[in-house]
Amino acid sequence: MIIILKNGASKESVDKLIASVQHHGVEAHTIVGSDTTVFGLVGDTSKVDIELLEQNEIVEAVRRVSEPYKLVNRKFHTADSEIGVGNALMGGKHFGVIAGPCSVESEEQIIEVAKRVKAAGATFLRGGAFKPRTSPYAFRGLKAEGLRLLLEAKKETGLPIVTELTSLTNIDLFNDVDVIQVGARNMQNFDMLWELGKCKKPILLKRGASCTVQDLLMSAEYIAAGGNEDIILCERGIRTFENATRNTLDLSCVPVLKAKTHLPVVVDPSHATGMASLVAPMAKAAVVSGADGLMLEVHNNPACALCDGMQSITPDTFESLMADVKRLCEFEGKI
Amino acid sequence: MIIILKNGASKESVDKLIASVQHHGVEAHTIVGSDTTVFGLVGDTSKVDIELLEQNEIVEAVRRVSEPYKLVNRKFHTADSEIGVGNALMGGKHFGVIAGPCSVESEEQIIEVAKRVKAAGATFLRGGAFKPRTSPYAFRGLKAEGLRLLLEAKKETGLPIVTELTSLTNIDLFNDVDVIQVGARNMQNFDMLWELGKCKKPILLKRGASCTVQDLLMSAEYIAAGGNEDIILCERGIRTFENATRNTLDLSCVPVLKAKTHLPVVVDPSHATGMASLVAPMAKAAVVSGADGLMLEVHNNPACALCDGMQSITPDTFESLMADVKRLCEFEGKI
Amino acid sequence: MIIILKNGASKESVDKLIASVQHHGVEAHTIVGSDTTVFGLVGDTSKVDIELLEQNEIVEAVRRVSEPYKLVNRKFHTADSEIGVGNALMGGKHFGVIAGPCSVESEEQIIEVAKRVKAAGATFLRGGAFKPRTSPYAFRGLKAEGLRLLLEAKKETGLPIVTELTSLTNIDLFNDVDVIQVGARNMQNFDMLWELGKCKKPILLKRGASCTVQDLLMSAEYIAAGGNEDIILCERGIRTFENATRNTLDLSCVPVLKAKTHLPVVVDPSHATGMASLVAPMAKAAVVSGADGLMLEVHNNPACALCDGMQSITPDTFESLMADVKRLCEFEGKI
Amino acid sequence: MIIILKNGASKESVDKLIASVQHHGVEAHTIVGSDTTVFGLVGDTSKVDIELLEQNEIVEAVRRVSEPYKLVNRKFHTADSEIGVGNALMGGKHFGVIAGPCSVESEEQIIEVAKRVKAAGATFLRGGAFKPRTSPYAFRGLKAEGLRLLLEAKKETGLPIVTELTSLTNIDLFNDVDVIQVGARNMQNFDMLWELGKCKKPILLKRGASCTVQDLLMSAEYIAAGGNEDIILCERGIRTFENATRNTLDLSCVPVLKAKTHLPVVVDPSHATGMASLVAPMAKAAVVSGADGLMLEVHNNPACALCDGMQSITPDTFESLMADVKRLCEFEGKI
Repeated sequence: MIIILKNGASKESVDKLIASVQHHGVEAHTIVGSDTTVFGLVGDTSKVDIELLEQNEIVEAVRRVSEPYKLVNRKFHTADSEIGVGNALMGGKHFGVIAGPCSVESEEQIIEVAKRVKAAGATFLRGGAFKPRTSPYAFRGLKAEGLRLLLEAKKETGLPIVTELTSLTNIDLFNDVDVIQVGARNMQNFDMLWELGKCKKPILLKRGASCTVQDLLMSAEYIAAGGNEDIILCERGIRTFENATRNTLDLSCVPVLKAKTHLPVVVDPSHATGMASLVAPMAKAAVVSGADGLMLEVHNNPACALCDGMQSITPDTFESLMADVKRLCEFEGKI
Repeated sequence: MIIILKNGASKESVDKLIASVQHHGVEAHTIVGSDTTVFGLVGDTSKVDIELLEQNEIVEAVRRVSEPYKLVNRKFHTADSEIGVGNALMGGKHFGVIAGPCSVESEEQIIEVAKRVKAAGATFLRGGAFKPRTSPYAFRGLKAEGLRLLLEAKKETGLPIVTELTSLTNIDLFNDVDVIQVGARNMQNFDMLWELGKCKKPILLKRGASCTVQDLLMSAEYIAAGGNEDIILCERGIRTFENATRNTLDLSCVPVLKAKTHLPVVVDPSHATGMASLVAPMAKAAVVSGADGLMLEVHNNPACALCDGMQSITPDTFESLMADVKRLCEFEGKI
Repeated sequence: MIIILKNGASKESVDKLIASVQHHGVEAHTIVGSDTTVFGLVGDTSKVDIELLEQNEIVEAVRRVSEPYKLVNRKFHTADSEIGVGNALMGGKHFGVIAGPCSVESEEQIIEVAKRVKAAGATFLRGGAFKPRTSPYAFRGLKAEGLRLLLEAKKETGLPIVTELTSLTNIDLFNDVDVIQVGARNMQNFDMLWELGKCKKPILLKRGASCTVQDLLMSAEYIAAGGNEDIILCERGIRTFENATRNTLDLSCVPVLKAKTHLPVVVDPSHATGMASLVAPMAKAAVVSGADGLMLEVHNNPACALCDGMQSITPDTFESLMADVKRLCEFEGKI
Repeated sequence: MIIILKNGASKESVDKLIASVQHHGVEAHTIVGSDTTVFGLVGDTSKVDIELLEQNEIVEAVRRVSEPYKLVNRKFHTADSEIGVGNALMGGKHFGVIAGPCSVESEEQIIEVAKRVKAAGATFLRGGAFKPRTSPYAFRGLKAEGLRLLLEAKKETGLPIVTELTSLTNIDLFNDVDVIQVGARNMQNFDMLWELGKCKKPILLKRGASCTVQDLLMSAEYIAAGGNEDIILCERGIRTFENATRNTLDLSCVPVLKAKTHLPVVVDPSHATGMASLVAPMAKAAVVSGADGLMLEVHNNPACALCDGMQSITPDTFESLMADVKRLCEFEGKI
């Protein structure tokens, strides 16, 4: 950590600042430049509150040299983490495919879709029971009944279930869910992250639409610091000025994340683009960019879907996409 | 609502689409253009799920003509809403000032700050008891004890209390709070919004860093649709590529919001800019842009604040800013 | 084009508006809704100035239904354009690879790199002679001498040359250049676009960092309207809040552009990411997303490059990347 | 400047790096941390090419401590620059108002508007002769004839003229213009900036829609490095995800710029917001935020303006706004 001092700081306040950082167990090395004086802090600075330093009246700015996250940092855990349920893993050589409808709508629908995606090669079943919607007048999911139907579909197909928790008040309903999804809008719901740190299930953490790669890693660090290191990161598009797609898929974040963390990274082209016709090209691009998995919306009748039908692909399209995905996974040495 | 059809749609699927919108009680008027056919929907379309239409295979795009919010729309409620507690109001001719530290740190601190800001003209006391922080290793507030200290400060000064709810699991602790704040990161926590719609207190709803003006109004509509129309909107900066300030204060949104809704709008220059030296110029700018109030971080010792000290102003700076604010309020005909 | 009227417009001003649009040869169909009246304009609206309508005092908003570009629109030219020099083509089944150093630095350097990239499969040689740099104190290219050296390298290898024009005042120096590049910062230099419309060479048009897909197509339309339809579009990253990469590569724009226009689309992962380690994964992703070509920075000694060395790959890395690119091109049915 | 080294760099390559920076006349001080080694460079680093360092294979990252601009930096020139023509100045205690139509359309129009804005208190006349337009089918200005009409209006009113140069190829036509405007789309047209550095007129430099405050200052440094330090900076909105306004006015950049540079800063609320109804509130906000001037579009018949009528205000609205601006200037101690 580098501290840049304002010009004209008194010797007394400089000594006080040095003493205060030494108090955290780190040493301050001084460099006197032509216009500016800086301190380099040496030691474990991950637990130093950067804002505490920035507010000091003699400090002009603070720059981090090492990352503010430890548990999810690849520097301290070089091997890829392999995370999942039974044989359905993501990370390392394992590529996973999470597929299913945006919302669970009926027993018939979810079981039909589950069978189709399993046959085509999906390794997890997704489906929303609690749906975050921007309008209070829109369909918000079947809730507990939706969770029950997902478990029916699991019974029929054996596919582990991934579904979203939208509020801690419902967490007791998620006991039989295999992977708990934290949606993009909850990526910085720190109370929720902390609570999920205590749970014994893998967490699928979606990147918020205005969150940086570092924000995402800090939210993963929250869950890990709470005691649960089984975290799968998911890129699903960021908000930019471009409006030809719903969000802007930041695919470069895949190799960036793979360098910075040992956690697996999956890509959700359905939510990122918001358009069914873009799902296949972006899914393929995700595979060769180094992703560890895909999350895809598949609906047996997209034109009747109660939400997000516009971005869902049909089981037939999914099947043909999966043929491409498999060939590209071979190309990448993934299984 | 305008529906743009894809070229080459069959008569049958067009008739089916028309029937499906008539089913919602709206009429479809057809315009056949040279390259394109469009439908204009006539009737109350606020409850039509736009995504249901977009997913129809013969639909190229859907454009809203009227807004998807009703209760908070100025079109249907032309007079300014005046919202607050007792005489401390915002909206119409009333200008409010919410001031206090980012976090409650001790009884001495909060009472000292409360007295100072009241003397200078603040009408509400703010202070965080539950603090959302990006790092799991940072200070997260005094929690229930923080709420207790805020109520002590209220007893001493008579200032109504504004404080943030970060999780529905704590809502029972907020019974004696005057105004419940929804933070930027929870602006689209729809479960929380829905629950707050049932409460009988004013809600201060902060705009999310990647949320549009329309997103903010839709979140306000959520609370209103739940039964609570006492909502104060707060602009606190959006996330952009500019990094000279923490966020980018979108001050133009004040007159935009005032035209679109009857709800009061306050501005928080402390969080928007993240720098104490920018608070006074942006606070003044907010007054003359038409805002109904300000939300300001004031700390009796910014250099020791346990969080966000960098953007806090001292009680002395607050006092001198309030002198300017009062003159500018007179200029604007506000009290 | 849909015109949404303000409430309470007088019959007289409505009639005047209708007359004014009829004057442009388009018809106005009226739809009277419950809260709002709209007009649907029928006819060729591509030459209607949308801002002229928006400024009318009875108009609330205008929404385009058809695109404001004609010549580059796939609707009116369904076959893929194949653009290039001799057998070096991009578009349709043809995949092109433009490779070379950011700047031409010496005869030895450019010839060495040209030979290496040709051997590995590049179809065009790139190299900057005029370099746009944000600091006036940085190296700005060898200028006319740089162009001369590029032509030497062309003589040695036969590779056609792609190089950037930074100012119309230098255009006479570009007579022997094969493809003229318009840089991202000049994408909306309309004087330059108009002038290039008169030239008989292919133009490589790079997307500006804050320009939408539609802005890019409008700039292409400028060149086409001037008389030159040999245009290659290039995605090279947009500016967002994310700072882990230099820009954010918007790879979804590839299939979006391929649907909207018949022009070829190439991707420049070097400038988009700004990091050599991200070039290969993003280049591979571009191929499978449907791009018609790549633009890559290759330097024989990145650690000594006079500019942008950070994002250059070595000839060895390029060679191994090209092996992957070829396999993926086969996969995609490209040659 | 701080250089962060990769782990595991050989002593030999470290020594080579140290020698290379010493070659630029700066000293490297080493700090060995627990995980990382950094160098602090001491000396004048403004002319060090940061990208040259970043590309070194043993360098992980480089962080600037001091700004990369010198001539426009307030650190080395603490007094406010006062820039303008005759008594029409901006900067220090001087507040300037540049008003007029977006485009010059006719002699009658420009003279009428010039008289009205002068009477209301404008100190400069603006008007576009060369107009950058995104569509090749839109009106692009009267060009040379437009410049002639502006000079007629100057003769009638005495107001100095501000008008935009869109291409260096036209610069000879600008001899009698008082202030040359560089539009947002040319803010990084470095050839143009360099050429304007040789001219003896004040330059009004508008901020590009995706340019940071630092980018703007680097472009000003370009002009200054060329020999012309008479530069007026202009904020006119940045591009963000928000679409309720044309751009997002970044008003906080005013106090940020005033702290970083001695140059005057003006605000253009017309282009920033794109809506006439937002011009007055944002103009007033600009005054109290510390701006040195305003740039406003005023048209005697906005509903007939050949471009950008939507954001123009009438002379009557301008007159009433100027009354407010004068009172607020008094409030701020400006004349």
